Amino acid sequence: MNDRRVTASVLIIGNEILSGRTQDLNLQYIAQHLNTRGVVVSEAHVIPDVHTTIVNSVNDARRRHDYVLTTGGIGPTHDDITAECVAAAFNLPLVVDATIEKRIRSRPAPPDIMENRLRMARIPKGAELIDNLTGGPPGFSIENVYVMAGIPSVLQAMLPTIDFDGGSIIRSCSVTAYMGESEISRELGTIQEQYGSGIDLGSYPFNRDGRFGTTLVMRGTDTNQLSNMLEDVKQAIRNRGQEPGEVSYDWDRS
Amino acid sequence: MNDRRVTASVLIIGNEILSGRTQDLNLQYIAQHLNTRGVVVSEAHVIPDVHTTIVNSVNDARRRHDYVLTTGGIGPTHDDITAECVAAAFNLPLVVDATIEKRIRSRPAPPDIMENRLRMARIPKGAELIDNLTGGPPGFSIENVYVMAGIPSVLQAMLPTIDFDGGSIIRSCSVTAYMGESEISRELGTIQEQYGSGIDLGSYPFNRDGRFGTTLVMRGTDTNQLSNMLEDVKQAIRNRGQEPGEVSYDWDRS
Repeated sequence: MNDRRVTASVLIIGNEILSGRTQDLNLQYIAQHLNTRGVVVSEAHVIPDVHTTIVNSVNDARRRHDYVLTTGGIGPTHDDITAECVAAAFNLPLVVDATIEKRIRSRPAPPDIMENRLRMARIPKGAELIDNLTGGPPGFSIENVYVMAGIPSVLQAMLPTIDFDGGSIIRSCSVTAYMGESEISRELGTIQEQYGSGIDLGSYPFNRDGRFGTTLVMRGTDTNQLSNMLEDVKQAIRNRGQEPGEVSYDWDRS
Repeated sequence: MNDRRVTASVLIIGNEILSGRTQDLNLQYIAQHLNTRGVVVSEAHVIPDVHTTIVNSVNDARRRHDYVLTTGGIGPTHDDITAECVAAAFNLPLVVDATIEKRIRSRPAPPDIMENRLRMARIPKGAELIDNLTGGPPGFSIENVYVMAGIPSVLQAMLPTIDFDGGSIIRSCSVTAYMGESEISRELGTIQEQYGSGIDLGSYPFNRDGRFGTTLVMRGTDTNQLSNMLEDVKQAIRNRGQEPGEVSYDWDRS
């Protein structure tokens, strides 16, 4: 485990996300999963199936982050160009991986269909495989770049097989207040200043069954500090003449 | 209307999206809306509530795209820093807008709460307002940058009020095939090559009630070409021994 902040960039590759045809569901899943591994997603980019854009985005992200995770573009069709782009980003040839080829050939198919499927066996030379718990073709990683499927069920069968060397785990706790953000925003700003940049205090308005309120969310690695900040926020709510609402913690306090 | 391709970059601003707390729903809405205005979303970035990141992202995007649309960070709390960052990106002072101030003051509140709310009246000097059909504080635009709320219902009350000077409208049509992608991927690649880069042919696998299939989606501005490509794809499905499934068009063919 690292003491320092370990960051990731997520590249969501696919015209279908940018056209609005498909709602991305992978970023939220990846972010929540990496939180539990001590890795902070500090940016995400949605980019089209365009060779130079993918190559440049991979190269830019891998130099600035501990991890780069890509989703999408590793299927068997002409618009699945992620593998060749990642190979190009690393200036490596794209080769057929014997392990993936064997797995793909284990499901019989006519020769021409098999040839199409074998597109999914191509990885940059020297890349390691990312297991795919669905039994389908694996993803791959090279240095700090992890290349995974875009279909959420497949992505979710790949990501948990990766061993991340993360930093301290980001914890969060929250409390709701049945008041508008502006009724408490000054106090929140003061509390945020007191605790500094190590804890992130966010406020998120909601409307639940016609009742307006604000969820105050604290995120950071130090649970003692988080607990203290939570008490301060609860006191600020009381100072405004309201009782704090539901409180939640994402760590075990027993 | 422009004949050329008119592009937009979407900046989704907010720690809550990157932490996985909140599922972004705005990109899909924006993309679908801009499609109908002849504007192509060609990239999107999810970035944190960090001053320099927002300033640099705005400056980078506004130089490379016809339009930049931002969501999030324009509420009344300490972590709502989008307005000041956009002002900084344009090297302009942040000023209180009299129109927004009047609208905010029309809802009475104690002086300290009113002061917090008035944070939402601050815009870069010279910016124009983006109406907010919910009756809440408006967004603003400056040059080609449009700054809107992150809450989907509020974003959706702002975006339709903007008048975009778009290019040709991107149309799409699709047909489903009850076969795997790799059964037809070679034919799709050949068809894509024939039509060139003016039409984008994508294939998206699905599993509907336990039945696997692939949706073939064509997108482009020329409906005659789209119709021709659709017939070619249907023929390719038939050549594979299947009948084409559901066909849909997003333009009026009467």
